[in-house]
Amino acid sequence: MTNPHHIILLAHGSSDRRWCQTFEKLAEPTLHAIENSTIAYMELAEPSMDTIVAQAKAQGAEQFTVVPLFLAAGRHLRKDVPAMIDAISEEHNVTMRLADPIGYNPQLGLAIRDVVQEELAKAAV
Amino acid sequence: MTNPHHIILLAHGSSDRRWCQTFEKLAEPTLHAIENSTIAYMELAEPSMDTIVAQAKAQGAEQFTVVPLFLAAGRHLRKDVPAMIDAISEEHNVTMRLADPIGYNPQLGLAIRDVVQEELAKAAV
Repeated sequence: MTNPHHIILLAHGSSDRRWCQTFEKLAEPTLHAIENSTIAYMELAEPSMDTIVAQAKAQGAEQFTVVPLFLAAGRHLRKDVPAMIDAISEEHNVTMRLADPIGYNPQLGLAIRDVVQEELAKAAV
Repeated sequence: MTNPHHIILLAHGSSDRRWCQTFEKLAEPTLHAIENSTIAYMELAEPSMDTIVAQAKAQGAEQFTVVPLFLAAGRHLRKDVPAMIDAISEEHNVTMRLADPIGYNPQLGLAIRDVVQEELAKAAV
């Protein structure tokens, strides 16, 4: 069954290629598990949300959920990203929903705990 | 058994109280599970790493692992934080190890996948 939604994993973006590679790697399990999911960058790197929406629309997608790969919401997520989403959804005539930043989900706090426990095990060697 | 290491969960910090509260919530499972763990901010919020190290040293701690609550490493983690750690460890005569940012650990990618699957379930309702 084709997933009716397109998922955009939105990272901030950086001119530093290593920074983007970290997010590409973070996105891998999601891209592997979820059909019609892609990563996009807010600024300083490609692809942009606009590029992704245009491509997906050309293939029939009309509904998008944008999941911010941000731990917390600052000015970007409160102001800039909603404004971008308004402009892009109007331009391409699609529906876009902005989800909470990933850091609002308790799963992240549990993953952080597991990571720290691994660090502690290393420190104890 | 007392944990010989003190864990510092290092967040960037913000003058926006809501931003810091998100990180305090993200840190909760770790603070609950791991004795001698605390959150600290790089800038714009308290407590600082310097404050935490001074307090923990006064209680006998001599070894610290700093776990950055950052998804990726930018200039802050490559330059500013190592310089801060050098200065603080020298000032307080303690050993401080800078761990990788949490985003380098595969656990985070798996958590992101789970979060996105929850978002997709919401979108399908």
